[in-house]
Amino acid sequence: MAQKGDLLSVRKDIRVVDATIRDGGLCNDFRFDDKFVKDLYAANVKAGVDYMEFGYKASKEIFDENDFGKWKFCKDEDIRKIVGDNKTDLKIAVMADVGRTDFKNDIIQKKDSPIDLIRIATYINTIPAAIEMIEDAAKKGYETTINIMAVSKARTEDIKAALEAFGQTPVSAFYIVDSYGSIYPEEARRLADMYCEIADKYKKSVGIHAHNNQQLAFANTIEAMTYGASYLDATVDGMGRGAGNCALELLLGFLKNPKYKVDPIVKIIEDHTSKLREQGVKWGYDIPYMLTGQYNTHPRPAIQFVKEERKDYYKFINELYDIINN
Amino acid sequence: MAQKGDLLSVRKDIRVVDATIRDGGLCNDFRFDDKFVKDLYAANVKAGVDYMEFGYKASKEIFDENDFGKWKFCKDEDIRKIVGDNKTDLKIAVMADVGRTDFKNDIIQKKDSPIDLIRIATYINTIPAAIEMIEDAAKKGYETTINIMAVSKARTEDIKAALEAFGQTPVSAFYIVDSYGSIYPEEARRLADMYCEIADKYKKSVGIHAHNNQQLAFANTIEAMTYGASYLDATVDGMGRGAGNCALELLLGFLKNPKYKVDPIVKIIEDHTSKLREQGVKWGYDIPYMLTGQYNTHPRPAIQFVKEERKDYYKFINELYDIINN
Repeated sequence: MAQKGDLLSVRKDIRVVDATIRDGGLCNDFRFDDKFVKDLYAANVKAGVDYMEFGYKASKEIFDENDFGKWKFCKDEDIRKIVGDNKTDLKIAVMADVGRTDFKNDIIQKKDSPIDLIRIATYINTIPAAIEMIEDAAKKGYETTINIMAVSKARTEDIKAALEAFGQTPVSAFYIVDSYGSIYPEEARRLADMYCEIADKYKKSVGIHAHNNQQLAFANTIEAMTYGASYLDATVDGMGRGAGNCALELLLGFLKNPKYKVDPIVKIIEDHTSKLREQGVKWGYDIPYMLTGQYNTHPRPAIQFVKEERKDYYKFINELYDIINN
Repeated sequence: MAQKGDLLSVRKDIRVVDATIRDGGLCNDFRFDDKFVKDLYAANVKAGVDYMEFGYKASKEIFDENDFGKWKFCKDEDIRKIVGDNKTDLKIAVMADVGRTDFKNDIIQKKDSPIDLIRIATYINTIPAAIEMIEDAAKKGYETTINIMAVSKARTEDIKAALEAFGQTPVSAFYIVDSYGSIYPEEARRLADMYCEIADKYKKSVGIHAHNNQQLAFANTIEAMTYGASYLDATVDGMGRGAGNCALELLLGFLKNPKYKVDPIVKIIEDHTSKLREQGVKWGYDIPYMLTGQYNTHPRPAIQFVKEERKDYYKFINELYDIINN
């Protein structure tokens, strides 16, 4: 394992991806008002962020539009209302889940869309479907990245086989996704090394998307970066499902490229995410998420615990033990 | 730099030090009720914690006893009321600050005291006074460790000279202290490596005391450990000055030695620290602490900001800029 760059150098390959609306949308069913999204877009431009993810391209056959805010579906016209023709250096991304996206109809030709990057998310058992989506999006003219989720539960040989398969597609980057917030920095380094070895062979990049169950989302992100990852996901105030994500303001403060600025993001926290918290939208490190992270399991029971405003953490340990062992 | 052990192995040299009452006491002027301290003592015994720090041995000449709870002074009789003759495997520690401890009078012979370990805290410019305290405590029969504070502001050659000097004393361990919460995991590894190189020469151990300004206290602790540190400071719920410390429940969940248990600490969070938060005692990661960490400066202005319940983070950036540059 070799370190790339050091604490004083600029890595030109770095791409900061703001995933606030997409992963944060999981906390409020994507019901952000337009002012938030417009302010965040302007702040990301000022802060030197490379990509802003607007939400999911979810299938309207599978999900009812009345149950969610518009960023669950990311219609091109809704994005255009925020970004116009997006004459900035900030690129626009959306996420497309395997099996939950009507990509043949909802993802139009790139030349007619404000979107630049389609981020395809898959589990390890749906690789062929993910490849089909990558090829469809690439043919339409988009950049693509691939998120292989819940990597802490996947077998090393399966991950390697998946990366070899994705290496032969037009995808730009392979993402390490610590869905359960269970990996430690030394594992983040090891995964980055493993992903990079295969990525280098196919001239691809590596990314990381971390969760903060053990207060390690930022640490794992910069450690994976130090060992070769270049696409770095983060969200304002760490907003994201359950324990949330790597905080964008921490990441921008760490990066040495002078194009990155913390201040515009601090303003968004002051003006928007702090207020969402006050309104009762819940995310961020808490004991139940720590426990699901330590047990390397889905945060679902912890999310439920927090939603119910329970405080009996000690009882939750036993409930979790039963859930995991049944 | 070489890694010691791996994610599956037990390191027999590890010593977990619970610093809740001492560093947490800085948040509430050491006003913990006896029930908290007794419950924490019992929980630490159950959790397999190696040392429990009760507070400071502060000089009653310098500090007025009416201004603080009793754990600012840690009289032997007060400790004995909690631990009796302490017939457990948990050892008792107190902190003694250079220049603020009447150690000749207040630290009695070890054979008459419930205290096992005197943790001496110094800045880089008061090394001779620290050595005098180490020698006094060692002569009285105590174990000692030395905390060199604010290491992120010290010059490498000065740190090395200090460690060489401490190497020739009876001290058991040299502590890396990230007072400003400004160091990154790769620096924690590098410092651990540097401290260990000198420690090995004198058959000493290395410790780490981290702050959470950048959500890195836990990461830096386990990274320093992975590269050789063995005395690991942590506090329940991360309770400690400003952004707080490495959370004990995170650390115990990481360590593989089966003697360490998370559950008793989760119970203390449920029964005690959650309630302190509800009562308005403040600590933990927040944007102003992130900023002082990023600027590698003392958290004082951030503590003031949080105490005043201000939320104008953006304005604080400029205030901080002025403070640092004046």
